[in-house]
Amino acid sequence: MANTRFAWEDNIRKVVPYTPGEQPKKNNIIKLNTNENPYPPAPGVVDVIKNFDCDSLRKYPDPTVGNLVHAIAEVYDVKDEEVFVGVGSDDVLAMAFMTCFNSDKPILFPDITYSFYDVWAELLRIPYETQALDENFHIIPEDYMKENGGVIFPNPNAPTGVLMSLENIEKIIAANRDVVVIVDEAYIDFGGESARGLINKYDNLLVVQTFSKSRSMAGMRIGFILGNEKIIKYINDVKYSFNSYTMNRVAIESGVASVTDTGYFNECVNKVIKTREWTKERLKERGFIFEDSKSNFIFAKSDKISGEKLFEELKKRDIYVRHFSKPERINDYLRISIGTDAEMKKFVETLDCILENN
Amino acid sequence: MANTRFAWEDNIRKVVPYTPGEQPKKNNIIKLNTNENPYPPAPGVVDVIKNFDCDSLRKYPDPTVGNLVHAIAEVYDVKDEEVFVGVGSDDVLAMAFMTCFNSDKPILFPDITYSFYDVWAELLRIPYETQALDENFHIIPEDYMKENGGVIFPNPNAPTGVLMSLENIEKIIAANRDVVVIVDEAYIDFGGESARGLINKYDNLLVVQTFSKSRSMAGMRIGFILGNEKIIKYINDVKYSFNSYTMNRVAIESGVASVTDTGYFNECVNKVIKTREWTKERLKERGFIFEDSKSNFIFAKSDKISGEKLFEELKKRDIYVRHFSKPERINDYLRISIGTDAEMKKFVETLDCILENN
Repeated sequence: MANTRFAWEDNIRKVVPYTPGEQPKKNNIIKLNTNENPYPPAPGVVDVIKNFDCDSLRKYPDPTVGNLVHAIAEVYDVKDEEVFVGVGSDDVLAMAFMTCFNSDKPILFPDITYSFYDVWAELLRIPYETQALDENFHIIPEDYMKENGGVIFPNPNAPTGVLMSLENIEKIIAANRDVVVIVDEAYIDFGGESARGLINKYDNLLVVQTFSKSRSMAGMRIGFILGNEKIIKYINDVKYSFNSYTMNRVAIESGVASVTDTGYFNECVNKVIKTREWTKERLKERGFIFEDSKSNFIFAKSDKISGEKLFEELKKRDIYVRHFSKPERINDYLRISIGTDAEMKKFVETLDCILENN
Repeated sequence: MANTRFAWEDNIRKVVPYTPGEQPKKNNIIKLNTNENPYPPAPGVVDVIKNFDCDSLRKYPDPTVGNLVHAIAEVYDVKDEEVFVGVGSDDVLAMAFMTCFNSDKPILFPDITYSFYDVWAELLRIPYETQALDENFHIIPEDYMKENGGVIFPNPNAPTGVLMSLENIEKIIAANRDVVVIVDEAYIDFGGESARGLINKYDNLLVVQTFSKSRSMAGMRIGFILGNEKIIKYINDVKYSFNSYTMNRVAIESGVASVTDTGYFNECVNKVIKTREWTKERLKERGFIFEDSKSNFIFAKSDKISGEKLFEELKKRDIYVRHFSKPERINDYLRISIGTDAEMKKFVETLDCILENN
């Protein structure tokens, strides 16, 4: 059946599907492969869900996502009109690509970066041109100062974890006032400085963040954009023309509970940072090579064993990390998400066992 | 600020935003304007939410939405590979438009129909051509038998509520084997016969349904497509290239509880049908003109008062119905969703009061 050629196929759009990170169904594994937070969501999220008015589900949610927009605006000290909320940062990025990257000139992003950028560009037929990272996996700001149709990069970058200084980010934004510059800050809460303070100074800046990592809400799908109210309006117009009601009632209410608990947020983030720094030391002791990471993962390679081999050996022992076979330049690296202290201790012990028997 | 012209605006996509139906924040209103179900979701949905494992929210949901896909497949006796699930029927329709309507020839849909079809076509730059309904608001099947890039229509049609026979639907599908035909069955459960039995006979057919109306889950955002596994695969490829994780964990689990409770589903649907038939009689007695409706709304005009006036008078009395000012041909009609018996009794009494004082 799958190989039958149907009459309608010439009229269909065919894309090379993106493969999301593995979500193993096994229990009792140590899951360090999708940058999830090892700690549960804020206690207020549990209260919202346990006390949820289920009868209200018969009615559509608020298409403006007003309560959650307002809560995010309060926490980040911006206006409601400067916030756009969607179904995870992938959704808000897809909407931003569709709205803001509408030029004939290529958009620019790093050659080693979040693997979805070229997928969206291909899907939405947006021309693009990748810029090589330097030999230490750092973005070269000058590469983003030529004529283009828009700029996007993550900060810290993925999967490298390398942070760019706010000074360099501002240079890129300032050099591109005629296009939109998107700073994708999925991992910024783990020690980086956000560019969100620049949105009042630069009307061409969008800052994207997510509840999936630092707020332990990957399973609820909440992402947002902060930016000039006029771009936010244009993105909302596109969203209303695509799917007016994206955020369900449970996501809206639990999102409010999540974002307003700053104490719990800081506590979890600091625990992850502390565990990350501990893990860095252990990796260094074992001869691993990596750039400093300001995210909730470490992108590292061993000087003793190939990336693929180490990935497989860990998996055999029920520890899942992420390995990228392409491009070749990174295929000896593993992206290791930061788990709990106990998980990272077990990870290091397992590493020792693998390296000894190698 | 909103009137400032920025340097980046030439590179932005601007669309005329779709305006979703009003979601008034007032309590104690009778809300008959967005075709919501007056009854709560299935009891199993409440159990799922009250007992939800909130810790699991720190992890991404299953991108394949496997449990819900499987539950839908079981209920409708199709294969898992023949089911695509998304964030309401708007999401699955947007994905289907993006995937399946990729020809240079115009897609065809009725001139009076779901108001999102032309919005998606404009946004996604899909050429389209509308076909006029006949004088009684019926779709003329022969209009959909000329060269085209795809066909879509709701059955029953919106906002008319008029049902097309399965025989005529099959004729349209059979005449269009080289393109995809989408039958949008948002309202089919209220007395129509679904085309889903034809998906094994016609590989070019997609049937779209939603949990928003007959399953009282508008606030949870769940829609699905049934179709040939090869088209479903293509749509999934596009979905994975747009946003891999669309359905949050609560939506997936509560969706399973909703779709598997056939007894409760039948009970609610039958109550709505009974109330609709009662309401039809009352409207007829009062001189209203309408085609027979097989949906959870009635599209009717008074012989005594204009649509706009009646809409305003009802609103003043806290009863919200839907009025479409365009096209002119329908601007004397109101789309009245079916509420509870008590709500419809109150609606009829209010109608009498308005008509007497007119």
